[in-house]
Parts: sequence; structure tokens; C-alpha cells
Amino acid sequence: MAPRSRALYFDDIQVGLRFTTGTHRVEQAQIIDFASTFDPQPFHIDPDAARGSVFQGLAASGWHTAAITMRLLVEHGAPIAGGIVGAGTEITWPRPTRPGDVLRVASEVVKVTPSRSRPDRGTVTLRSETLNHHDEVVQIQVATLMVPRRPAGAGESESGGRQARCCAA
Amino acid sequence: MAPRSRALYFDDIQVGLRFTTGTHRVEQAQIIDFASTFDPQPFHIDPDAARGSVFQGLAASGWHTAAITMRLLVEHGAPIAGGIVGAGTEITWPRPTRPGDVLRVASEVVKVTPSRSRPDRGTVTLRSETLNHHDEVVQIQVATLMVPRRPAGAGESESGGRQARCCAA
Repeated sequence: MAPRSRALYFDDIQVGLRFTTGTHRVEQAQIIDFASTFDPQPFHIDPDAARGSVFQGLAASGWHTAAITMRLLVEHGAPIAGGIVGAGTEITWPRPTRPGDVLRVASEVVKVTPSRSRPDRGTVTLRSETLNHHDEVVQIQVATLMVPRRPAGAGESESGGRQARCCAA
Repeated sequence: MAPRSRALYFDDIQVGLRFTTGTHRVEQAQIIDFASTFDPQPFHIDPDAARGSVFQGLAASGWHTAAITMRLLVEHGAPIAGGIVGAGTEITWPRPTRPGDVLRVASEVVKVTPSRSRPDRGTVTLRSETLNHHDEVVQIQVATLMVPRRPAGAGESESGGRQARCCAA
């Protein structure tokens, strides 16, 4: 993957900075394929069985929703220098992803913490909502990301400072 | 999927109950394939680029580790009645999964909470460690699962009560 031309270093990131991603349409075949490999429970792989389940219809594995969310963030979401490297995350799934859902992710920086032990980095807490095409939230994720500080001598990133905040609502 | 003959209802589950899964060997091709679809960052898809990254070598996406953990839990792990249905989860990844790692999951019930509003269910908090073949922890997950109470008239589950606790260390 080519280096991000708009990469943000820790120094460029403030609480309140927002990102939005592109979209991904989730097909029934994708739901069944993912779940057959990683979460082979009837309500994720068998539309007939799913109707009688707690989900009342085929539902994507929550891990599929999480993985699609990551893809959207990596492709079009948070342009973090060095990539999106998470140390940990909290996730809730208020409702399932369904066949035909078109997902997008809206993220906001909620905390920035310089590292005490490593002056070359910090942590950024990013809250991301994954929404379907009805604007219903299918996942809320609060992730702790490790973000490098701008190396000495490196120039300002293209989207640092004011330009990065252009994405805020 | 056939119904679990050893399914545990909420009534069968106590704090301290433990489960262990089978194992899954993670091949480099699987790591690259998963990440190419869901987390296409250089340290997950390009062994050469990964050597110069923060991971110092190819590392599985954390979401891949999470998905493999789910597969292990579904196949051989916690035999929850009605399936493993998570409302939310916390995850940390103390170290990455590497090519050739053989993963297994060790889980323990850390909390059981009857539902106040729904007498037919409760929530079970399950702490799961995913370990590699060096007994190093690659993921810690604390998941909140929705678990049905035993329906009126249903018999004791085969592994309820004393038998279920056979798995505790």
C-alpha cells in the first residue's frame, strides 16, 4: 500500500477531530461466507433457521461488522501516520447488520494521551459509529490507537492542523 | 448446525465456570488473505514491509485473531443454549498473532446477571484469553453474552450443574 499522503501524526490530532468513511454494501452471500469460516451459528449462516432465532432473520456476525468497519477506516477513514494500530477496543452491537445493509463509519477523536514512557508516540481514543443506510447504529467502537509523533525534521503533514479539522461537523 | 446436546442455560452457569477450546494453526496465507479483505495495511499483508513496521514482522490483524477466537469458542468452547450472542465486548491485544501460531482459547465466567426486564434471560460475562503455542496471550476478551433461562418444562441440560463445572481448573 502506498504511503498515505495525508497521514496524521499524534501532533496533528485533537479531541473533536472527526472522520467519515466511504460505504460498503453487505450482501447475504458475504454474511454467510464470513460466518461459515469464523462464526458458524445458525442465525449467521442459515436464513431459514435465522427466522426462528433471537435475531428474527439472517444477521451478520458482529465480528463481520467489526471487520468491515476496519476496512472502511483503513481505506477512507482515519489517515493515521504508520497505520491504524489498536492496542485495545470496546465494542457494542446495538442491532445486527442485515443482508443489503450499506454501512459507513463516522468517527470522532475523544481523547489524546501522550505516552509517559515513549516520547515518540501517544495514544488516541477514537469513537466510531458504524451506521446502516437507515442511519441506524449497528456498532459502536471505542478504540485505543497507538500514534507516532512527527519525527524530528519531518514536515507538516498535508492534512495536519486546520485541514484535518475540515472533516469535523 | 445441529442443536448442542450439552447446551447450558443461564440457570446452569456460575461464576468460575471455565471452558477451553480446541486449537487452530494460523498460516501466513490466512493472515494475508484476511487482511487483504478487511485490514489491508502493510504489516498485515506484506512480509517485507512488515519487517520495518512497528510489528517487526508479519502480524495478523487483531480482527483476525478475534474472528479465530470466535470460531474456536463456537466449535469447542462455551456451549451456550441458543448460541453465543454477544451484546458487546472489550478486547486487548497484548501481542500479535504470527504466522505458524497455534491458538487456543481459555475462558472463565466472571459475572452472571439476571435480566431485570426479561425474566427469560440473563447476561453472562465471559473472560477469554487467546493463547499461542508458547502460552503467550495474544488477546484478552471480556464479552457480555445474552443467555436464555431454561424454558419451563425443559429438562436439565446434560452438562448443567456439577457436570459443567468439571471443566473448571
